[in-house]
Amino acid sequence: MAAVIFRSSLSFAARKSLAPNVSVLQRRASSFSALKVSQDRLWDHIHSTCEMSGATADGGLRRLSCDDNDKKVRDWFASEVKKLGCKYEVDAMGCQWAILPGENNKLPPIGIGSHLDSVQSGGKFDGPLGVLTGLEVAKVLKESGKKTYAPICVINWTNEEGARFPPACMASAVWAGEFDINAAHKCTDTADKKTTIGDELKRIGYAGKKECSYKVSPLSAHFEIHIEQGPRLENEGKDVGIVDSVQGMHWFNAGLRGFTRHADTTPMELRRDALAGAAKIVLEIQRLGRETGGMATVSLFKSQPQNFCNIPSAVDFSFSMQHPDKATLDGMKQQVASFVKKVAADDGLEIAEYDNIWSYDPNTFDKEAVACLEASAKDLGYNYKKLISHTAHDSLYTNMHVPTAMVFTPCRDGISHNPLEYASPENCSVGAQTLLGAVLRYDDLLRKKHSG
Amino acid sequence: MAAVIFRSSLSFAARKSLAPNVSVLQRRASSFSALKVSQDRLWDHIHSTCEMSGATADGGLRRLSCDDNDKKVRDWFASEVKKLGCKYEVDAMGCQWAILPGENNKLPPIGIGSHLDSVQSGGKFDGPLGVLTGLEVAKVLKESGKKTYAPICVINWTNEEGARFPPACMASAVWAGEFDINAAHKCTDTADKKTTIGDELKRIGYAGKKECSYKVSPLSAHFEIHIEQGPRLENEGKDVGIVDSVQGMHWFNAGLRGFTRHADTTPMELRRDALAGAAKIVLEIQRLGRETGGMATVSLFKSQPQNFCNIPSAVDFSFSMQHPDKATLDGMKQQVASFVKKVAADDGLEIAEYDNIWSYDPNTFDKEAVACLEASAKDLGYNYKKLISHTAHDSLYTNMHVPTAMVFTPCRDGISHNPLEYASPENCSVGAQTLLGAVLRYDDLLRKKHSG
Repeated sequence: MAAVIFRSSLSFAARKSLAPNVSVLQRRASSFSALKVSQDRLWDHIHSTCEMSGATADGGLRRLSCDDNDKKVRDWFASEVKKLGCKYEVDAMGCQWAILPGENNKLPPIGIGSHLDSVQSGGKFDGPLGVLTGLEVAKVLKESGKKTYAPICVINWTNEEGARFPPACMASAVWAGEFDINAAHKCTDTADKKTTIGDELKRIGYAGKKECSYKVSPLSAHFEIHIEQGPRLENEGKDVGIVDSVQGMHWFNAGLRGFTRHADTTPMELRRDALAGAAKIVLEIQRLGRETGGMATVSLFKSQPQNFCNIPSAVDFSFSMQHPDKATLDGMKQQVASFVKKVAADDGLEIAEYDNIWSYDPNTFDKEAVACLEASAKDLGYNYKKLISHTAHDSLYTNMHVPTAMVFTPCRDGISHNPLEYASPENCSVGAQTLLGAVLRYDDLLRKKHSG
Repeated sequence: MAAVIFRSSLSFAARKSLAPNVSVLQRRASSFSALKVSQDRLWDHIHSTCEMSGATADGGLRRLSCDDNDKKVRDWFASEVKKLGCKYEVDAMGCQWAILPGENNKLPPIGIGSHLDSVQSGGKFDGPLGVLTGLEVAKVLKESGKKTYAPICVINWTNEEGARFPPACMASAVWAGEFDINAAHKCTDTADKKTTIGDELKRIGYAGKKECSYKVSPLSAHFEIHIEQGPRLENEGKDVGIVDSVQGMHWFNAGLRGFTRHADTTPMELRRDALAGAAKIVLEIQRLGRETGGMATVSLFKSQPQNFCNIPSAVDFSFSMQHPDKATLDGMKQQVASFVKKVAADDGLEIAEYDNIWSYDPNTFDKEAVACLEASAKDLGYNYKKLISHTAHDSLYTNMHVPTAMVFTPCRDGISHNPLEYASPENCSVGAQTLLGAVLRYDDLLRKKHSG
């Protein structure tokens, strides 16, 4: 696989240093908290969409990007937002855009987005909570008759997981101008190298004509709610998390080649065993994650040949490393690269592949958007925590062009990407309510800015 | 997979300590070396059978037990031995028995056997050299008009490799009474768990009616020629090897189970990473092979789930360990078992499988059979070396019931189970000539014993 390197440029926040306008935020606090999301409706949507499109016997969700389940849930989402009178569009990456008009429709909408796709053996919350909260906010606004100043846009970003078609956050990266759409359309199914996401978007009827670009579909801001996927909020007994940054990441695909021959008869000193070499690298990557206080994982791992009596000659694997500090993260990258070279030299292996597939630097969310979330949580009386996101979400890419921030809900035992993934109805609605309050606050800031 | 433990009982040599009758062997040496195998015909058969049934573009052989290529070469072998006037039978494990009558047909035949199947990406010599040498010996005897005292039987043992249907040496183990035939017939294809070798024997027309048993198809002795599969003969510039023993072996299937969750967001200390645990075991097994002077290999290795953003939760692997010393070999077994338990405890993993699939103790071949080979090599003026076999062959099982010994030919760089496997025409014919001389010597011993 050729290297497809995403590298995020400076975050929006770093480029446009907007100080939070706290006085404005606090002055009208009570009215921002008057509208209430429906905990029951949100919970029902999370479960009913799962049932209709991808529920698995073990209580999880399997809804791979552009598969038949993804089509089903997309069709349902389109029907729901059309019923609300939203302006509905699909872009060339299959992203669904549902715009509820505001008073000033010349302004780009405030986006509330996330994804409806899952990993192969995922849970009900990672992704759907975000899009369905956007839908819930739109429903509450519509039902209340309250008209926002800017339009509100609910977005279903295509292929956030990248589980079927790597890399992840594909459509938001295209929207941000960080990934060429033609290259994106050619990305292939991990289980079937002949199928591209471009083909599958056409097959399910979601290859829209509108360009997928922040220039064509601009936003005034982007808010996203997601389960935390880690144990910090739960461990500290917090109601909700306000995400103000994202740690950096390097993702590599690597391949080692040795030589296969008889396993029983080849003297140890003559071996070029790719599996034994790869095993050293797996442990070195684990060690680096532990010793730096970051994270590091070898995930995909395939060894060949699969024969009882042959020495393994080919191992292909993927690994990723995360750290909040750029210098430390880049140090990890260099240490792994040196270690892989040393193992190859020591063990007589060739490095057939060593590709940096995806990287992003540690990133800071927009201060004003974060402040809106914080004011909302405070006003609602929630016990909140500001925290860093350990992984990328579509918000990483929206943050390159528009003020962005995220809400995290606690999730049981910090588990995600697993059928056991769970956030309580209360956790979900507390997060949604926090997001709604922040959207109304941000909208109010826009009103002041543009109508004042 | 349930444990199917083969454990070889005492070797025939250990039970029946027959001292070599050297005087007899030497007295008639020159006549034993008068008949000459045809180097060209043997070389042609090795290559033409490969071309007709399983030649691969990379110069190797892919002829998995009971596949269509195996059927083709079996049909050819049957036709060849019938042309020679052999009595031809197929047993219930699909073994082909081709008996050239002798003077005293009440005596069990002297067997010359090996296998025609290969591993998935194998060479032309591992196996076929043995059966085709048997055929060459039968042709030479027939053409010369020489009648042996005992009948001579060329045997194609089914599924020696066990590459498609593990475990290896399947039919010879059934013949030796070490593996129940019903259990053998149920062994499944590694690539398709619904297909059994019993089904496939029927499909290719090789499920014979005759019981596969040393009681029903007894032998007076068994000789086998094989490429060495290691570098000793080549390194020492030897013409041929006389194999007097086999090192012992333990083969295990193991499975570790952790827990899969998000790779980017799960703190290192909360992980139960089955791949990282398995990596430690791979390296410990390699260390044991090196430090004991034996061999040890993790071969099959599968990790799940195969998703970029998930921690691996399930690894299944197979490993084998070989050593000439039983106490050392059993010590290796115990050390790995303790190490696996420690890793499981340290890393929060469950041991889902830990099955001893196949084991055999270090084994000694029959002194008289070995002496016949040694006398033959000496008489022919070959520079030979007595050596231990590092892996099992069908001779391991015949040795449990009848005097057995093996010939090794040097092979280039000691490589086997690889398309690069190569033994020269001269190496092959020197080995075949050594074997022919030994068979004639052993036949002469039988004549003395039974007609004297």
